[in-house]
Order: sequence, then C-alpha cells, then structure tokens
Amino acid sequence: MKFVNLDVAKDYDLLVQLIKDEQPDSIVHFAEQRAAPYSMKGSKQKRYTIENNVAGNNNLCCAVVDAEVDAHIVHLGTMGVYGYGTSGGEIPEGYIDVILPGGRESNILHPAYPGSVYHATKCLDALLYQFYNKNDEIRVTDLHQGVVWGTNTPQTIKDERLINRFDYDGDYGTVLNRFLMQGAMGVPLTVYGTGGQTRAFIHISDTARCIEIAINNPPKKGDRVEIFNQIAETRRVRDIAKLVAEQTGAEVNMLPNPRQEAAENELDVSNEKFCNLGLDPITLDERLFDEVQEVVKKYADRCDPTKILPASFWNKKRAEECADLEKVEVEIKKT
Amino acid sequence: MKFVNLDVAKDYDLLVQLIKDEQPDSIVHFAEQRAAPYSMKGSKQKRYTIENNVAGNNNLCCAVVDAEVDAHIVHLGTMGVYGYGTSGGEIPEGYIDVILPGGRESNILHPAYPGSVYHATKCLDALLYQFYNKNDEIRVTDLHQGVVWGTNTPQTIKDERLINRFDYDGDYGTVLNRFLMQGAMGVPLTVYGTGGQTRAFIHISDTARCIEIAINNPPKKGDRVEIFNQIAETRRVRDIAKLVAEQTGAEVNMLPNPRQEAAENELDVSNEKFCNLGLDPITLDERLFDEVQEVVKKYADRCDPTKILPASFWNKKRAEECADLEKVEVEIKKT
Repeated sequence: MKFVNLDVAKDYDLLVQLIKDEQPDSIVHFAEQRAAPYSMKGSKQKRYTIENNVAGNNNLCCAVVDAEVDAHIVHLGTMGVYGYGTSGGEIPEGYIDVILPGGRESNILHPAYPGSVYHATKCLDALLYQFYNKNDEIRVTDLHQGVVWGTNTPQTIKDERLINRFDYDGDYGTVLNRFLMQGAMGVPLTVYGTGGQTRAFIHISDTARCIEIAINNPPKKGDRVEIFNQIAETRRVRDIAKLVAEQTGAEVNMLPNPRQEAAENELDVSNEKFCNLGLDPITLDERLFDEVQEVVKKYADRCDPTKILPASFWNKKRAEECADLEKVEVEIKKT
Repeated sequence: MKFVNLDVAKDYDLLVQLIKDEQPDSIVHFAEQRAAPYSMKGSKQKRYTIENNVAGNNNLCCAVVDAEVDAHIVHLGTMGVYGYGTSGGEIPEGYIDVILPGGRESNILHPAYPGSVYHATKCLDALLYQFYNKNDEIRVTDLHQGVVWGTNTPQTIKDERLINRFDYDGDYGTVLNRFLMQGAMGVPLTVYGTGGQTRAFIHISDTARCIEIAINNPPKKGDRVEIFNQIAETRRVRDIAKLVAEQTGAEVNMLPNPRQEAAENELDVSNEKFCNLGLDPITLDERLFDEVQEVVKKYADRCDPTKILPASFWNKKRAEECADLEKVEVEIKKT
C-alpha cells in the first residue's frame, strides 16, 4: 500500500495531480474532523471543523472534475444528518417520499437536522454532492454510519501495527467503546442525562465490509447520489450501559447532559440496502466485548482518567448545568 | 456612518471584538462572494466561493454566540436555493408543508436545489442558521432574493458618491441590468439558450426597503429562522429581452447556454410576507429603464465590450457548446 501525506483541505494541486497519476476507480473519503464533541468545544474547534471538512470535501469534488477521472467517491457520512427524534417514522436511506401541497408526490433528500457542527458538516457535504452530481455527473456513495464499536477487523487483528486507535475520552470516544473501556478500567460508566438517547450501532468489522460493498456497487454515470444507512441495529444508551455494567461490575454514573439534544428519542432506521447486498450485520454480542476489554487491559497504563469526563458543552446553558463535573474525580481501580 | 475594514471569513477575533464593542441590534450580512458565473469559472473560483462564504457565515454565527450579543442576523440569500422548475407548485417562503410516509404532516425547510456553487453556499448558510438557531437560539432572517435590477434608491440618488456599482459583464452582470446596458450601448442583448428561464425580479429600491422591513420585524428569541422571499414578480428572460429590445432598438443575440440548467421553467413564488408587512413592490416599469440607461450612457466610456459575453461555463459539455463564442465580436455603436 502506498502512502501520500497531503492535506485535502489545503493541498489542492497535489490532490488533482495524485488523482491524475493514480486514475483511481474509487476514492474512500475519510479526511474529515470526525468528532461531534470536539466540534462543539468552542469557536476555534467549530471553525476548524467547518473549514476543514467543507473545504476538503469541495476540493475532492473539484479535483475529480478537474482531473477528468470518473472516480467513485465513497464518503463517510453519519446517521446524525437525520437528527434524532424528529421523524416519527422509519428513517429511509437518504431520500424520503413526501407529498407536497396540491398532492404532488416527490422523493427528496431527507431533511437535515444536525445536532452538532460536526454533524452539520456532513449535511453540507451531502448538499455539495447533490450539486456536483447534478452539474458534473460525479458518482458518489454517502454512507450514513451509526456509532462504531469494537477495535479489530479480521484484517487488523493479524498484526499489532494494523490496530486502529482506541478513543476513550470525552471528545473522541464513541459511547459503547467508552463504556467498555470504563468497565475494563473499573471506573463508573458515564451516561449523559437520562441515557434515553437511542442511537444506531455498527461493529468496526461491518464498517469495513460496508465500504467494500459500496465500492463494489458503484452508482452508474448519471445516477443520483447513492446513500446507504450503515448500521446494524439501534439501542438505547442506558440499556447499553446496563449491559456493560452487568458484564464488568462497573457502576453507572448519570451525569448532566453536556449536549443540546432531546433527553429521550426513538429511532427506527432502514438498513435494507446493505442487507440486500450481502451484509449480515454483527449485533451487540457480549463475546465481542471480551476482545475490546483485552485491548483495553493491555494498554491500561496509557489511560489518562482525567480525559474521561465530558469536556465539551454544546451551549452556555449545558455548560452551566455541567459546572460541577470538574469536581468529580475519576480513579482507576487497581486490577 | 462608521467603516471598519475586516475580512469576516478570516479576521475572527476582530469580528468578535467589533460585535462586543458595537452591541448591534441587527447585523446585515452581505459579506459573500455574490456571483453564480464567477463561482463556476473554474476550481479556483469554486473553492474561493465555498471557503469564503461558508467560513464567513460560520464565523458570524460563532461570533454572535461568543460575543454574547443577541443581535438579529439579516442575511442575503437567493431564490436560487429552491432551484428552478423542480417544484411544480407555488414556492412558499422558506418552509414547505409536506406529508411524510404514514400520513405524518410536517413543515420542513424547502429542499435545496442549487444551480451553481454560489447558490450552493446559500443553501449551506441556511443549514448553518438552522443549526445555530436550534443550538444557541440565534435570531436570523434569511432573505431569498430574486434578480436585482436598477441602479439607484431614493437615498443613493442624492449624491453621486453613493451610487452602487453597475455590473454589466458576463460574470457579475445580472440579466436585466445587462440587457439595459447592452440596449443603451447599442450591442445585441445576450440571451442564453432559448431564454425560457423564468426568474424572480426585484428593483434595487425594494431590496433596500425589504432589508429595512426585516430589521424592523425580527424573530423573537427562540423562534425558528425567519425566511422571506424578496421578490416583486417573475418574468421569462426572453420576454424581458423583447421588452428591452423594443425600448432600445437593440437586436437579440441567442447564445448557447453556458449554464447547466433547464432550458425552460415555470416559476410561481409567494411573496406574501413582505407584502403583508407593507411592501408595495415596484414591478418592471419602462420608465425606470430610463434611469438605468442614463447611468449607462453617462459612463459609456468605461465599458469594455470584451467583458459582455459569458466567460464562465458550468461544465465541460456547456463549455464545448459555447466554444465558438470567443469568435463573436461585440462592437459598440457610436452614439
């Protein structure tokens, strides 16, 4: 595998040249600031997330057009573009049937309800894809991914150097991995608010498999942007906390919610497209928890317990409600 | 009137300080690259338009939050966010009633169908407003403006130094002003394609009046983003060309269309909100043409006829269809 180090948001000419040189069939676009809490820490992070993600994505679209290479862009989006709890029905894959005034039937891009600046950039990306697809017939697949958990795929487990990073902190740690790490370290699981948030989940092996499926099933020239919901199942956060607590004996620590979001939401999501293309999704399986816990125990000495509590607050009101959090001490049990 | 020269897309700290110092009730946000043809000239212009407009708009939202000033943002949007010819019914003001699967009634932001990178930035702006409004309760009015024509308002006509710039070129000249200028200069009117594009128009006096009305009718704290259609009427481009040709004796030159757009479209737009707030819109009035033509004649010596033809082509196919345009010579008749 070849590696080229360039900043997609800045090194435009190098990007065009790379695409011309490589003549890729597919471009998997992960080059974005990827964390909602990071994007909400303050104006510096909000601005970086917008500027990096939107400029990078626009550069990629422009570069594919400029390079005159009919490469299929596979983009990592998020389930968060749909919003949570606003729909009241099953969330379809990208597009939704609507009846407009006068009884006109239409099929439109699902309305965007982002819950953070990070999620907003994925909505902006989606609009740019719609535009470049219409104007230049670029071929795009947008993957609306759920919360990823797990550490290894069948490939990465073959060599320690291939292991993915494991984020457990308040900014980058996704919820289930965070709980698993907290459980393994013997610190209380940090549930925000009532834990009534329902989210979509997918194991990291299936993430990799979905990208493979997307690459092998590109839209045809002139087709609209393809959108898949890249999820295995939906679960409520407090139920996951309970599951991990039972497995590990950890306590559950209910914290005030640092995020501006509904306390409780239902979530019903279609993932038919990937299933029809051969995905047999891994659902939350306690046996897989063991693997994550092994990884966590192996690297326990690297854990900084001061990074576990939320350190990003969506707005002034949420920050005030969380003002006492700093006083909570997290101590790691000796194992 | 005080003037401060700063780049909203870059000088973030200065912007926050300015808002803190001034404690404005309203901020009228015009600080964006404003031309669709310019935004489509090439990747350099596409990238600049995205980076400048989106970063600037995000900076303004962040700055209002950071400065802790409850300023009402009045933003210049465009009718182009709705797309042309996709709706099949009256375009409402910003939000549209829909029936979702299962008979669920909803009122959503009108789907975005931008026709250029410039128009796309206005759609991205709209999504950022939705987000910051939800997260931080910022107060925003987005003005979806039609094509502006005319040169003077009752205020600017009082002193020559207040006269607005007058763009007649292929990149910045909006269609009716371009025709009026071409008519006054005695060069053929440049109609793109069949001229079947229907667009919304507004006189520059009403633009100023609408901004005043918007400022005087701000949304309340916690209200959703207010959206007005800032238009007086809709007209078909070839009908406008005919009107100007009859007035001025100019010929009409049908050119291949440099834009990726439908050759013909209908357009039915609501402008009830402004009318209910006291706007009595000026419609296309040949008497007002005289004023523009006087301005044009006065500054005729500044006109560069090589700038009149389109110099921006939406995609490769449109560029190829327009390949012979360079050979067309535009000569100014001696008057």
